[in-house]
Amino acid sequence: MLLHLSTWLEVETYLEQSKGIILPIGSTEQHGPTGLIGTDAICAEAIAKGVGETTQALVAPTINVGMALHHTAFPGSISLKPSTLISLIRDYLTSLTKAGFTKFFFINGHGGNMATLKAAFSETYAVLAELNLPNADRVQCKLANWFMCGSVYQLAKELYGSQEGSHATPSEVALTQYVYPDAIKQAPLSAEVAAGYPIYGAVDFRRRYPDGRMGSNPALATPEHGQQFYERAVKELSQSYLEFLAQD
Amino acid sequence: MLLHLSTWLEVETYLEQSKGIILPIGSTEQHGPTGLIGTDAICAEAIAKGVGETTQALVAPTINVGMALHHTAFPGSISLKPSTLISLIRDYLTSLTKAGFTKFFFINGHGGNMATLKAAFSETYAVLAELNLPNADRVQCKLANWFMCGSVYQLAKELYGSQEGSHATPSEVALTQYVYPDAIKQAPLSAEVAAGYPIYGAVDFRRRYPDGRMGSNPALATPEHGQQFYERAVKELSQSYLEFLAQD
Amino acid sequence: MLLHLSTWLEVETYLEQSKGIILPIGSTEQHGPTGLIGTDAICAEAIAKGVGETTQALVAPTINVGMALHHTAFPGSISLKPSTLISLIRDYLTSLTKAGFTKFFFINGHGGNMATLKAAFSETYAVLAELNLPNADRVQCKLANWFMCGSVYQLAKELYGSQEGSHATPSEVALTQYVYPDAIKQAPLSAEVAAGYPIYGAVDFRRRYPDGRMGSNPALATPEHGQQFYERAVKELSQSYLEFLAQD
Amino acid sequence: MLLHLSTWLEVETYLEQSKGIILPIGSTEQHGPTGLIGTDAICAEAIAKGVGETTQALVAPTINVGMALHHTAFPGSISLKPSTLISLIRDYLTSLTKAGFTKFFFINGHGGNMATLKAAFSETYAVLAELNLPNADRVQCKLANWFMCGSVYQLAKELYGSQEGSHATPSEVALTQYVYPDAIKQAPLSAEVAAGYPIYGAVDFRRRYPDGRMGSNPALATPEHGQQFYERAVKELSQSYLEFLAQD
Amino acid sequence: MLLHLSTWLEVETYLEQSKGIILPIGSTEQHGPTGLIGTDAICAEAIAKGVGETTQALVAPTINVGMALHHTAFPGSISLKPSTLISLIRDYLTSLTKAGFTKFFFINGHGGNMATLKAAFSETYAVLAELNLPNADRVQCKLANWFMCGSVYQLAKELYGSQEGSHATPSEVALTQYVYPDAIKQAPLSAEVAAGYPIYGAVDFRRRYPDGRMGSNPALATPEHGQQFYERAVKELSQSYLEFLAQD
Amino acid sequence: MLLHLSTWLEVETYLEQSKGIILPIGSTEQHGPTGLIGTDAICAEAIAKGVGETTQALVAPTINVGMALHHTAFPGSISLKPSTLISLIRDYLTSLTKAGFTKFFFINGHGGNMATLKAAFSETYAVLAELNLPNADRVQCKLANWFMCGSVYQLAKELYGSQEGSHATPSEVALTQYVYPDAIKQAPLSAEVAAGYPIYGAVDFRRRYPDGRMGSNPALATPEHGQQFYERAVKELSQSYLEFLAQD
Repeated sequence: MLLHLSTWLEVETYLEQSKGIILPIGSTEQHGPTGLIGTDAICAEAIAKGVGETTQALVAPTINVGMALHHTAFPGSISLKPSTLISLIRDYLTSLTKAGFTKFFFINGHGGNMATLKAAFSETYAVLAELNLPNADRVQCKLANWFMCGSVYQLAKELYGSQEGSHATPSEVALTQYVYPDAIKQAPLSAEVAAGYPIYGAVDFRRRYPDGRMGSNPALATPEHGQQFYERAVKELSQSYLEFLAQD
Repeated sequence: MLLHLSTWLEVETYLEQSKGIILPIGSTEQHGPTGLIGTDAICAEAIAKGVGETTQALVAPTINVGMALHHTAFPGSISLKPSTLISLIRDYLTSLTKAGFTKFFFINGHGGNMATLKAAFSETYAVLAELNLPNADRVQCKLANWFMCGSVYQLAKELYGSQEGSHATPSEVALTQYVYPDAIKQAPLSAEVAAGYPIYGAVDFRRRYPDGRMGSNPALATPEHGQQFYERAVKELSQSYLEFLAQD
Repeated sequence: MLLHLSTWLEVETYLEQSKGIILPIGSTEQHGPTGLIGTDAICAEAIAKGVGETTQALVAPTINVGMALHHTAFPGSISLKPSTLISLIRDYLTSLTKAGFTKFFFINGHGGNMATLKAAFSETYAVLAELNLPNADRVQCKLANWFMCGSVYQLAKELYGSQEGSHATPSEVALTQYVYPDAIKQAPLSAEVAAGYPIYGAVDFRRRYPDGRMGSNPALATPEHGQQFYERAVKELSQSYLEFLAQD
Repeated sequence: MLLHLSTWLEVETYLEQSKGIILPIGSTEQHGPTGLIGTDAICAEAIAKGVGETTQALVAPTINVGMALHHTAFPGSISLKPSTLISLIRDYLTSLTKAGFTKFFFINGHGGNMATLKAAFSETYAVLAELNLPNADRVQCKLANWFMCGSVYQLAKELYGSQEGSHATPSEVALTQYVYPDAIKQAPLSAEVAAGYPIYGAVDFRRRYPDGRMGSNPALATPEHGQQFYERAVKELSQSYLEFLAQD
Repeated sequence: MLLHLSTWLEVETYLEQSKGIILPIGSTEQHGPTGLIGTDAICAEAIAKGVGETTQALVAPTINVGMALHHTAFPGSISLKPSTLISLIRDYLTSLTKAGFTKFFFINGHGGNMATLKAAFSETYAVLAELNLPNADRVQCKLANWFMCGSVYQLAKELYGSQEGSHATPSEVALTQYVYPDAIKQAPLSAEVAAGYPIYGAVDFRRRYPDGRMGSNPALATPEHGQQFYERAVKELSQSYLEFLAQD
Repeated sequence: MLLHLSTWLEVETYLEQSKGIILPIGSTEQHGPTGLIGTDAICAEAIAKGVGETTQALVAPTINVGMALHHTAFPGSISLKPSTLISLIRDYLTSLTKAGFTKFFFINGHGGNMATLKAAFSETYAVLAELNLPNADRVQCKLANWFMCGSVYQLAKELYGSQEGSHATPSEVALTQYVYPDAIKQAPLSAEVAAGYPIYGAVDFRRRYPDGRMGSNPALATPEHGQQFYERAVKELSQSYLEFLAQD
């Protein structure tokens, strides 16, 4: 059940049986010479939709732009500052908590969002409590990174070994190929790829990772792989969502 | 050309010939008993995609959640505070201006976004100038509300007369029916509908407009109407975008 | 009844019979070679005082500086950032709502304030509700732009036709001449005047509008015209204020 | 020379010979049973105008609302939060520094503004330097409290002794009587008046100072006294302004 | 009783008998060629500990970094912006007020903190009241500057006369020598020392005060003097704290 | 070399040979019935001092209060909101980067700080770049959590097995016992201890973890263990710091 394809009456009915909602969050950032700029949002959205179907959960619209400041020296990347993303999450959850939601399950497609999201959850719990919202002390957020699912990680290792890398990875590229088979890109990929540098500012990042990849070989990706990743992530996160709901 | 389906190399190439980008912005808010919560985002996104195809322009991911505080007494509505939306716009445009974009064309699906967007443009011009970004004094934003296109307005008047109303209108509902024919909703609509009250806070809004509609009769909407609205808006806004680009 | 010339005991008494207050807001910005920098504040203040006298309403001190970032490439202009103006309005209305006021009637002298004021109203409704202030959900703000009164617009058209323009207009200059006859300025005004460009950042604005006027011929203004504008605006806005008060 | 009664061309000319500007700042807050709510703004504005005439200095519009949170349990008081006032001052000085001003002389009518103004000056110096504004490291702010002038203090002591008190004082009330002789108020004043308590929050303040006065007997005020205070303050602050200008 | 060396159970017990807490605040800033960068924090911490022992009061961890923007052109200085320090104080007091504390006694070692702290207290009183925290209207903050104690001032005058100066003073240096006798520094000190200039921005400050001292001769300091200052400050502030506690 | 025990001349000299600085950060929060409220700050400070001695690095004053919102239902806990901590870190690093530092090594004693610190680093890199600070694109932050050192983890496992738990752990308690042997606390510890619940808001945390411990048995701690933890952490982090410095 997709929130943007529902009416408020349907949401009112939904709330009678569940206080849970799934919020997909991605990023709009370079993903190497062949990866789509929307990769992280595409993956999060597709998987969230799958989890929603599997579990009958409501799925919010995708947060397409996240915390990707370190990618902004590559054109096409868009990022919120962490302080802005914290305000955004606070506003989303304030709106939804007022309506009666208390279980927020974020399906995340971007490693760079993790720290800020966790900070945002802490800030939001405190703000909701200060505003004396009913049920504020029952609000719970869970961060579910599809790329960190055990079954996903296992498959990536089997298929790509060390060529999985850590950004513009064949696994995420494969998933976008499965979702958007018409948008599979070709571009020369040097065999040698930078890897292992820590991440600091945007200019520094581009200096170290000149084509945007971090140790990955996205040429290994196929739509068929993508389907497998999709199915594993949906299965594992559906289970995770149901456990989250069941938790006190 | 959709940003999320492009690579950074493609964006780099695009920037050699154009500094323009289209940013669809909608809202996630109640649209009466039969209107989709995502109506404003769906309309903006579909039209932006159409304009992008017509004009070869790059289209950014849709900003799905806007300024809808007055709708938040209806479940399922999500809103940013104006101050948060201003920060978000500032961050988007800072990222894109650094990359070389200077012409920002916002295709907007929600009247409630207009004031905050204009405030955000003013704030952003000043901030970019203070940061000494190259071309900061050449940055231009244009707000294009599809529902205020002359040709759209004309058609709505012909088809619906005074039953168009001003929220959860048959024209916007029709457009969503055209885009998502599988998500056409049925619910009882009272013949009498509240109209003409000014908009203040969320509780007050729901008190005055108990089913969420503002003077509208969305039962008049059909997918065929939706297609007509879509085509008129795309045509008119494509023209508008090209003029905006051509302007000094 | 002017707030700054009242005592708190008088305000306490006033609140027993009315929850309404008038807040004049202007701007401090260039108004072409002959227009006063305080034009917008002067007009708003004079009219607000007149409306207060006509309707027995309390009038707050004038907000002299508003959102005029696009004029700041001309010396003497002072502007708040939109985010600052939003905080200012929120603070004003928080103070006044705590005291029992719920009807806020802004008499505005500057088009550039409109978007930010509307955004500020939305932000304030939400913040007051979150803080659980008594009557928060009864708070209502109304934006009354004197220069958009029908009777004012009509007169400007009759007197000046297309030479009214849209900034440093003869109508607003006339009104300041009526209020401050000793401060009527003379300076050469080129017959040709820039017009029709959209407004972006401050440097761009001055590039397009080199003497600060936007399509106007303020040389047509006279103090006698000013009195007429004043009287029409006071009459129309007094009516508007009383209707606002009477509204549920 | 009053900024709001000047044109931008006149300001441009003024800047050729002086980089100084006077900014009056007051407050909108209760001043006891007989004191005007605008007392602090009225005094600051009148004296600033006098100093401007004496020294040929430009005088900005009065900041009518300052930091008066502790007075907000009395109706009619309006206050900015300190963080808002800091943003406001930063915005004012950013606008004026861009135009070439570097010497900012604040004539202040309210003790409660002092701490926040000093904090705002520090914040502004740092922000202007970070933005690389030309002359940022030459920007200087001076806080001139008229009520702390030696000659003013001396006169208050002579006229009122210990009945001067520290809020709603006869000296400030006298000055408003001189400026607005038609707005002299009468109300019963108990002989006993609270005094000596420190200032904390608004509710606490009203509990301790039930009629709003702090140890003062404003019944002693006369318009003639007011004129004397006015003349002493103008003389002393004019001298102070010229020394400030002359300083490196 | 030091908060950082206590358990939460001990704090719970403490709150049964006292609602007071001492918060030492200093600064991390240049103190001339021989003064320690931590001087203000060291003094505040030592004295706060002494007062805590004398009065059985709980002492919070020292706020080591304060408002020292004007010192930041000297390496090693660290400063918060005033707006950040206000947020920090608001967060500290929100945490502690929720736990039941209402009496906050700040022992301050840095003149530059005073304005921002006072602004922060005002902001905090208002915010706590808006959040409806229990006892919010009983919260009281007191700013106690050890260097402004009468007995301290008297001793400094006797020992150093006009060579006390106003920054990097022998009295504060002496106190650090008493606390950290192993960190007594030697460096050439010119006999002539800049004095009497007002404080503006950081670059300006260093231009006027090239070695960081303001009219002081810290070579006069001895650890024995430091002990005397310490003892006087502890005695006087202990008395002051007890009076603060006893106050309604 | 401790910053607070240094002079600015010594820092100037230091900067000629190193651009690195160590910033200890802890927290002020409950640590179970026997753990010190300052545990995280005490550990971070002691280890940072040790690393500074080993590597000749400059050590900044300890940030004593961090992000501990979830502990604030226990008295004595003090927390910054994440947004405040981000501003604080931004201010610290702005001050230090202006002075020439570019390598910031945070020795952290509190798991709850990690997300916000990472978000703060990202925000700061972007802000410094926007302000055009020299070397802004060379600024690097590293987060070093002493409790996650391999050698520390190994020892905790050997000594305590599963009784290490995850908050108020015997390892951190032991370290504080080594540093402050006079502050070893005794209190009854139930054999059964809550464990395994995720962390949400403050009220929820205390409901799940009624005595503050998370699965730990701090009664196992001894000062001798503490010394071992200290020595392992200092050794491992000294190595880590030197590698960080050597890195491009």
